[in-house]
Amino acid sequence: MKRTTSKGDGVPVPASSRRARLIQASPIRKLNPLADAAKKSGIRVYHLNIGQPDIPTPADYWEAMKCRIPEVLAYGPSQGIPELREAICRYYDRLGTAITSDQVMITTGGSEAVIFAMMAVCDEGDEVICFEPFYTNYNGFATMAGITLVPVRSRVEDGFHLPSDDEIESGFTKRTKAVLVCNPNNPTGTVLEAGELERLAKLVERHNLFLLADEVYRDFTFDARRHASVLDLANIPEQVIVMDSISKRFSSCGARLGNIISRNTEVMEGILKFGQARLCPPTMAQYGAAYLYDKLDESYFRKVSDTYQSRRDVLVEELEGVEGVFFLKPEGAFYATIRIPVKDADDFAAWMLTGFNVDGRTTMVAPAAGFYATPGLGLDEVRIAYVLKEEDMRTSLDILKKGLAVYPGRKA
Amino acid sequence: MKRTTSKGDGVPVPASSRRARLIQASPIRKLNPLADAAKKSGIRVYHLNIGQPDIPTPADYWEAMKCRIPEVLAYGPSQGIPELREAICRYYDRLGTAITSDQVMITTGGSEAVIFAMMAVCDEGDEVICFEPFYTNYNGFATMAGITLVPVRSRVEDGFHLPSDDEIESGFTKRTKAVLVCNPNNPTGTVLEAGELERLAKLVERHNLFLLADEVYRDFTFDARRHASVLDLANIPEQVIVMDSISKRFSSCGARLGNIISRNTEVMEGILKFGQARLCPPTMAQYGAAYLYDKLDESYFRKVSDTYQSRRDVLVEELEGVEGVFFLKPEGAFYATIRIPVKDADDFAAWMLTGFNVDGRTTMVAPAAGFYATPGLGLDEVRIAYVLKEEDMRTSLDILKKGLAVYPGRKA
Repeated sequence: MKRTTSKGDGVPVPASSRRARLIQASPIRKLNPLADAAKKSGIRVYHLNIGQPDIPTPADYWEAMKCRIPEVLAYGPSQGIPELREAICRYYDRLGTAITSDQVMITTGGSEAVIFAMMAVCDEGDEVICFEPFYTNYNGFATMAGITLVPVRSRVEDGFHLPSDDEIESGFTKRTKAVLVCNPNNPTGTVLEAGELERLAKLVERHNLFLLADEVYRDFTFDARRHASVLDLANIPEQVIVMDSISKRFSSCGARLGNIISRNTEVMEGILKFGQARLCPPTMAQYGAAYLYDKLDESYFRKVSDTYQSRRDVLVEELEGVEGVFFLKPEGAFYATIRIPVKDADDFAAWMLTGFNVDGRTTMVAPAAGFYATPGLGLDEVRIAYVLKEEDMRTSLDILKKGLAVYPGRKA
Repeated sequence: MKRTTSKGDGVPVPASSRRARLIQASPIRKLNPLADAAKKSGIRVYHLNIGQPDIPTPADYWEAMKCRIPEVLAYGPSQGIPELREAICRYYDRLGTAITSDQVMITTGGSEAVIFAMMAVCDEGDEVICFEPFYTNYNGFATMAGITLVPVRSRVEDGFHLPSDDEIESGFTKRTKAVLVCNPNNPTGTVLEAGELERLAKLVERHNLFLLADEVYRDFTFDARRHASVLDLANIPEQVIVMDSISKRFSSCGARLGNIISRNTEVMEGILKFGQARLCPPTMAQYGAAYLYDKLDESYFRKVSDTYQSRRDVLVEELEGVEGVFFLKPEGAFYATIRIPVKDADDFAAWMLTGFNVDGRTTMVAPAAGFYATPGLGLDEVRIAYVLKEEDMRTSLDILKKGLAVYPGRKA
């Protein structure tokens, strides 16, 4: 049966697809109209709700592009320009991971990397295991591609580290094709230990699954942690697919460049064909990115990572021990998912924008329920992105605390 | 049953998805390895196989961007920056079509516009009517999205204009959700007449379908033809979705900017949510494009269109009347699909790269079978993109004629 909607004059018009109607609106962006209204009324809003770094895009990015302005801005290769793919191989080589350029495919943002990877391992109705809370946009990609995300819960009490093998395996069915991790994690800031990855490797090997890893935050780990990549799991080289991006690495979210890395030839052939359909990723940004991959070394990433670590420290100083607030110290990326003493964090986040301010200033956070797939979970949690300067972090968290103290929906 | 492939040591590894295995390789690009080999051996290859214009990207594109280099290259709005959406409204206003900026969504290339539009009107298993030959990448998007393209044939003898209503309706089933046209057409260069669009409007109204129109070549029409847009079909405003791109309009294929236009609120809401999942289109290119939409008027498009028309004229001069060659004069875009006297145009195109040259030069064309969905059709046709300077067009077509004359697989 074709569902129809009705024009004003009663004449039927065709309905949009189920996926168009059912795909979730971004929980990170859905409070934006309230923030806009607050700003219009003169309130200054501190954005802890979105992972938009304030780190300047390296000037070399722009310089590298200016040198390459062509007469005709033409299509590039579907898999990306060779100099970027080779620069990425050198980046991995410096990290001790051997990758060849035919194992690298450049994508339009990490977003395209995720949807291509999902589509390369799943057909409609197939399932992917995700640890909730997870990056909410995975939901959108799964809806578009007709894939079911099966959530396995991780808990704030465990610092959102992996649950037991039994809990993970409880999510497996005949339709399971992959396990998906985000490491370091958005929205929790958790960094998986090498041992946890080994545990996943054994599970996917035993069940003959793919292991998909979103490693876009890999350069940002705190307290001298070293990032463990799924690319270094020796036993399952053909089962691993990494999704990456330059958005956070080089503070260039608007460039829309990411990449997929896999040693599985069949997977990479399929992904190349997906890529051929959309022709190519943006051409100019690739010149800039290639230059940065070679030019910026560990010392640059250390500096940026230390900046986020200092902000993380401010977060811990400000919120640790606050009554009713609970979280373990985030280990990487620039996020924390925090339990707060409210019944409905959605309502709290909206109230901060509409019913509360301190001297004309307020703080915007992302309600965590949107990062969970299981209804009812995360209702008393928010995600905080620590992407502001230390001073602004301190001010905005102080406002958050003051709001929490007087919020009418506070848990008794 | 989970299909598995085998590692060298006999241990099973999971198989990629059906869609990854079955999606077609680009028929436009699949002969590239032969072309590369030819070039390596010193042969100059004239590329009539790919729609990469040689028209310079307007210098203002770069200047407009340089003025807007930000400190942080941040995410932009998911629907695109307001100044670009408003500039597109002014472009349409000059053409006499009223569009508001909330009816415009900026996409990452025309490619994303097509896949978003398809996904907005179709769920898995739904069908879209296409007139074959059609732009081959529609196949890729359909495979990714789980949609079935149902081909209705158009014929070289009719200049690839629309078949009869009966023929079109013969493709309709209960799963049909939309009719898709490309106008002006890639790969045929056909420009639909206003009457043909009216005919389609009646059909989609009667059957309660969407009408999707890829109008990326709308600025390029020949012999004083005026382009008729589906946006001007007064009776079906909520059933029309236009997919567009700046790639050809401003000779900026590598920018990866396109757009979707629809007056259907439900469709646009769904597409915005698809867009939120992938965050945003490339930020910088939007500044350049916004500037060009306002700065370049009808006189610019006229000049570019006249350039393509002159090349089209060379094509007609060189190939009309050649024995066994048949086509009607192309009316727009910069393509022609041409019947040639061979049994297998795939083999002919490959042979031109491997077995033939004139003084160290040869010509690459795209076999047309890849533009047909029905097996066996288009085997004696090739697509020619007239994107080279007149002199090069003349040389490359002369080489093509000489090749045709001596090709061993020539039809008796």
